[in-house]
Amino acid sequence: MINVSILGGSGYAGGELLRILLGHPNVHLKQITSRQFSGQQVSLLHPNLRKQTNLLFVHPSALAVCDLLFVALPNGESMKIMKSLVKKADKIIDLGADFRLHHQEVFEKWYNLQHRSPELLKKFVYGIAELHRSGIEKAKYVACAGCEATVSILALYPLIKHELIKNGVIIDAKMSSSQAGLKPSLSSHHPERAGSVRSYMPTGHRHTAEIEQELKINNERLEVAISATALDMVRGLLVTIHTIPNSKISEKDIWKAYRSEYSQEPFIRLVKEKQGLYRYPEPKILQGTNYCDIGFEMDKTTNRLVIIAAIDNLVKGTAGQAVQAMNVMYGFPETTALEFPGLHPI
Amino acid sequence: MINVSILGGSGYAGGELLRILLGHPNVHLKQITSRQFSGQQVSLLHPNLRKQTNLLFVHPSALAVCDLLFVALPNGESMKIMKSLVKKADKIIDLGADFRLHHQEVFEKWYNLQHRSPELLKKFVYGIAELHRSGIEKAKYVACAGCEATVSILALYPLIKHELIKNGVIIDAKMSSSQAGLKPSLSSHHPERAGSVRSYMPTGHRHTAEIEQELKINNERLEVAISATALDMVRGLLVTIHTIPNSKISEKDIWKAYRSEYSQEPFIRLVKEKQGLYRYPEPKILQGTNYCDIGFEMDKTTNRLVIIAAIDNLVKGTAGQAVQAMNVMYGFPETTALEFPGLHPI
Amino acid sequence: MINVSILGGSGYAGGELLRILLGHPNVHLKQITSRQFSGQQVSLLHPNLRKQTNLLFVHPSALAVCDLLFVALPNGESMKIMKSLVKKADKIIDLGADFRLHHQEVFEKWYNLQHRSPELLKKFVYGIAELHRSGIEKAKYVACAGCEATVSILALYPLIKHELIKNGVIIDAKMSSSQAGLKPSLSSHHPERAGSVRSYMPTGHRHTAEIEQELKINNERLEVAISATALDMVRGLLVTIHTIPNSKISEKDIWKAYRSEYSQEPFIRLVKEKQGLYRYPEPKILQGTNYCDIGFEMDKTTNRLVIIAAIDNLVKGTAGQAVQAMNVMYGFPETTALEFPGLHPI
Amino acid sequence: MINVSILGGSGYAGGELLRILLGHPNVHLKQITSRQFSGQQVSLLHPNLRKQTNLLFVHPSALAVCDLLFVALPNGESMKIMKSLVKKADKIIDLGADFRLHHQEVFEKWYNLQHRSPELLKKFVYGIAELHRSGIEKAKYVACAGCEATVSILALYPLIKHELIKNGVIIDAKMSSSQAGLKPSLSSHHPERAGSVRSYMPTGHRHTAEIEQELKINNERLEVAISATALDMVRGLLVTIHTIPNSKISEKDIWKAYRSEYSQEPFIRLVKEKQGLYRYPEPKILQGTNYCDIGFEMDKTTNRLVIIAAIDNLVKGTAGQAVQAMNVMYGFPETTALEFPGLHPI
Repeated sequence: MINVSILGGSGYAGGELLRILLGHPNVHLKQITSRQFSGQQVSLLHPNLRKQTNLLFVHPSALAVCDLLFVALPNGESMKIMKSLVKKADKIIDLGADFRLHHQEVFEKWYNLQHRSPELLKKFVYGIAELHRSGIEKAKYVACAGCEATVSILALYPLIKHELIKNGVIIDAKMSSSQAGLKPSLSSHHPERAGSVRSYMPTGHRHTAEIEQELKINNERLEVAISATALDMVRGLLVTIHTIPNSKISEKDIWKAYRSEYSQEPFIRLVKEKQGLYRYPEPKILQGTNYCDIGFEMDKTTNRLVIIAAIDNLVKGTAGQAVQAMNVMYGFPETTALEFPGLHPI
Repeated sequence: MINVSILGGSGYAGGELLRILLGHPNVHLKQITSRQFSGQQVSLLHPNLRKQTNLLFVHPSALAVCDLLFVALPNGESMKIMKSLVKKADKIIDLGADFRLHHQEVFEKWYNLQHRSPELLKKFVYGIAELHRSGIEKAKYVACAGCEATVSILALYPLIKHELIKNGVIIDAKMSSSQAGLKPSLSSHHPERAGSVRSYMPTGHRHTAEIEQELKINNERLEVAISATALDMVRGLLVTIHTIPNSKISEKDIWKAYRSEYSQEPFIRLVKEKQGLYRYPEPKILQGTNYCDIGFEMDKTTNRLVIIAAIDNLVKGTAGQAVQAMNVMYGFPETTALEFPGLHPI
Repeated sequence: MINVSILGGSGYAGGELLRILLGHPNVHLKQITSRQFSGQQVSLLHPNLRKQTNLLFVHPSALAVCDLLFVALPNGESMKIMKSLVKKADKIIDLGADFRLHHQEVFEKWYNLQHRSPELLKKFVYGIAELHRSGIEKAKYVACAGCEATVSILALYPLIKHELIKNGVIIDAKMSSSQAGLKPSLSSHHPERAGSVRSYMPTGHRHTAEIEQELKINNERLEVAISATALDMVRGLLVTIHTIPNSKISEKDIWKAYRSEYSQEPFIRLVKEKQGLYRYPEPKILQGTNYCDIGFEMDKTTNRLVIIAAIDNLVKGTAGQAVQAMNVMYGFPETTALEFPGLHPI
Repeated sequence: MINVSILGGSGYAGGELLRILLGHPNVHLKQITSRQFSGQQVSLLHPNLRKQTNLLFVHPSALAVCDLLFVALPNGESMKIMKSLVKKADKIIDLGADFRLHHQEVFEKWYNLQHRSPELLKKFVYGIAELHRSGIEKAKYVACAGCEATVSILALYPLIKHELIKNGVIIDAKMSSSQAGLKPSLSSHHPERAGSVRSYMPTGHRHTAEIEQELKINNERLEVAISATALDMVRGLLVTIHTIPNSKISEKDIWKAYRSEYSQEPFIRLVKEKQGLYRYPEPKILQGTNYCDIGFEMDKTTNRLVIIAAIDNLVKGTAGQAVQAMNVMYGFPETTALEFPGLHPI
């Protein structure tokens, strides 16, 4: 049993962490903070947790020492206080963007912010267990990947490692509204956001930097172009990745590459069916789960390999990834508290 | 050709007015105001009007004299300035709540605000043309009805006039998000609002006051209880009205009452089909139209008469009602600029 | 460990049963049948169960003896074969409508079908554990309640038992598309069904019969009028119940009645908050859970008591209710396999 | 005034044609056919047209001679009867796929059907007025473009003509449910289709053939790869087109190319804003309109030019395109009956 606290518990990532951790048999949830709502029931903001817990939010200034601290703050906040946080907890898992990129100048270029704790950057392991399991096992500090980066990296990694595609990939990302967090704005206002198919970031998505960091192709920089479109969907993320396959590869080679990397992975499913409605990955049926579903279709005539991958952005893309990393760090069975299979129909 | 201006053009009612008036052959649209966006293209806020107009918002302080002024301000605002507005325009149509209720104390009770121009209250005619056509013809000032009141009054009026139902009606209203206007808040935040079936006002809806004002039953106060539920819908309003029929009435009597009041009405359709999918009114197919669709079903076993009525809250419930009133005031054909039939499927 | 089979496993109820039972530590899932899909992976129809199970559908003719049989067939089917089913299993839980009503003539009136096993009607206990726990404990055969009946009965039961309301209740039910099952039709066709607020049954809903059976008021028939509206929602059910309170009751009396009946109930939550967005029950956050959330608002001026209650129609309204009944029948902790708390946001 | 009939009036394309033509001052709508619903009100299937018309469907065998015949039949049907249809009408506009492709073998390859009237293929002009206005003016027979082809061709045509992009374009198409027509199936069943982000055609979309036919690049075949994803949307189509710009081009060159081709086009709008929510094209606000909105974003770092274009698939993509072609054929003002500006919010 470990003592775990959450710094920044009022947002969607914090709430999802709380939901998952309340079902974890090896975790004692010690504190969850909120500046604005300290003293109030967590169920005020996370109404699904009524009757699940009587926890109250505490003020961040009251944060006590714990074994593991999850940090779920807006981007740019955790780097301001990380030096003091490392005194509060033996291990830290940061769900924000501040410590994902290993190089200060890369962070500063993409986030247009000066990094406030650059000396700590090298101490964080990137949180995707499928790629960095042994690093996470030994890590004190983990930085969880961005949701869009998570699904794209998991989809591309075997293809690049097995040298099946050429450089130059295009990621057409279909995004949901929970990714933008809890703060209302005109762009999240229901009359404007409902029914939208909005090209909110046709080029220049920040998660490009993470993908470039994690995936080298022939020891070179992977050329990645992300176009992100926001849909009328609360949870979920689907990427359609357009690639050019190397000339002589077959569908079998692709299967082989995925199986060789992922056949033992508990949270990755290859989805490519000849019948049924759900022949390819779909975020709809992944809500609440830690799965990353991956499929593909090859088109010899146009020399294209289209990869399709889906996750729940708040679970595998954020809080579930974080709990998976915690399980790895402490040697708990990796799927603990992440067993929810998802719903159908939904 | 009349010169028309809109005071308060940045909101949804203002935008819808603009859309309709741009298609009106007898209207020259002179000015549309916005404090915050003065000097900018109206299409910045009303993107459907790109290539329809090059109008710019003007600051309200620049409002010039015109023939007819539409006032589309938040509740509580127009009463503060109405005394000066009457100098700007020969005729005024107010789309807000300030001048709908004839009695100061009723307004003050329901809106919990002191009325700032009580002496003008009696000069406004209530804007539902189907009930007050001759009053509107002669009126200088019209106050359009609230959307929920509009559809409920139109549904109930013939039944009460023809003495077909008992006192005590229950209105279960299914509402959309555009009713709450342009201002973002947590309750309109897409992740919270999408998919919701939210009992946001189980009792105590303000439009009760308008319904009581317009409908007396046997010369007594009509007892009305509204329960309002917000759905994942941008436009549209459906009411399910639960009533107790007088003992000996038949379906024929109900048909007769509706036909006797509405058979000449261009914007009211009786919808009660034996086949097809759209057997009763549905807001889905009314988007953009000025129709009020009304249907009913009688249940002898439980002695219930259920009335179902639907409108587009921004058209028949707001801007379309206002233009209909304008057409009546100036003797234009009543359907001018309100001919859009609606879309299917949608 | 008990051996459990599901007869009729291709539909939504069967799939949801399967999802829940796969997580039940005391259950060995023996067989799941499908006439059309026998020999195929269950994940073909229930894609959320990929990597959860390798079960194949078996043909119903291959159904073997088991301890407990869940029957999830279309209405009218189980009564044709129940006499042979009782030979297959010691205990049976029927999720369909055939054995819910104790009286043959009531069934035949509402379903317009001749009952094929009337002699078995009296052997079935109605499956709402909150009302019939001790009966279910001893029962061999349980008939689960209809989803609309479940939520309405749970909402009304304490008020009637404690004599807080008058006879004559109006249930305005907001329904989802999964209630109509797996079979496509024009009314479930996405272009027609999406965005709809459809009065598909303004009067005459069949679940009226169950409510009348379960709830007597002052030893008399409860007068119930249901109006059902179908929304653009896949899962979930909300009822707005309009009642007339007895003259001298207060909010405290209502709280007291609910608490007295339900304070020990694991799956019932009273939801009536002064702050937050989720002040009343909402089906949105109940997806996948076995909760029935109940709230109310009283309006002294109109002498109305509005009760609001919500469930997931496929869980508490169908498969979860069935598993809860199984847990009661076998003395397992009642919440076993039904612990999922639900998601937010969703 | 011309006499116009619609062959195949029960589907979504037929209904939309009817809606538009009822508002056309130069058209007398003579007949609309339906095999299954002959003798019934058109409003049975097109409920938005209640009170707009009292037309009844007639059986196709009763089709009389008319000036212009619109054919709105399922793919593969019009080619079976076209030889007889040309005797019924002076001019024909076919909304289906049968006569879009000029070469029999191309049609047969993509549709996997033998063409039944190959000798008529060359007599049809492809129906996009922006590219073939003078051809349509003189044409007797017009074949309207597929919806996906329409928006993609309009988006790409100026770039290719002005030699701004390299060969090899990737079209990521976001599609709606009305594209699949009126026929229910499991894939259009609301519980399965709502909330979906479904990769229903990752490669091999048939509209590729039309795009290849209409757009040559440097006198060579344009390499086009379409990936189509179905969203929870009834109407609308957005394409995100990923291209590689020629090396020295600037944003100005792109603007210039679009303006040079489209500045006089009444139905094309260039949408690329620095502020506001609707900075790029969105199908949401195009519902019911004949607009094709086009925007783009260039990314020098990844050497990408992303083009974004949107239409209402049933209007500019089908019925509106057909009426626009009719207007051109008869010399009516091209925007006649196509003036609806669209709604916001919606």
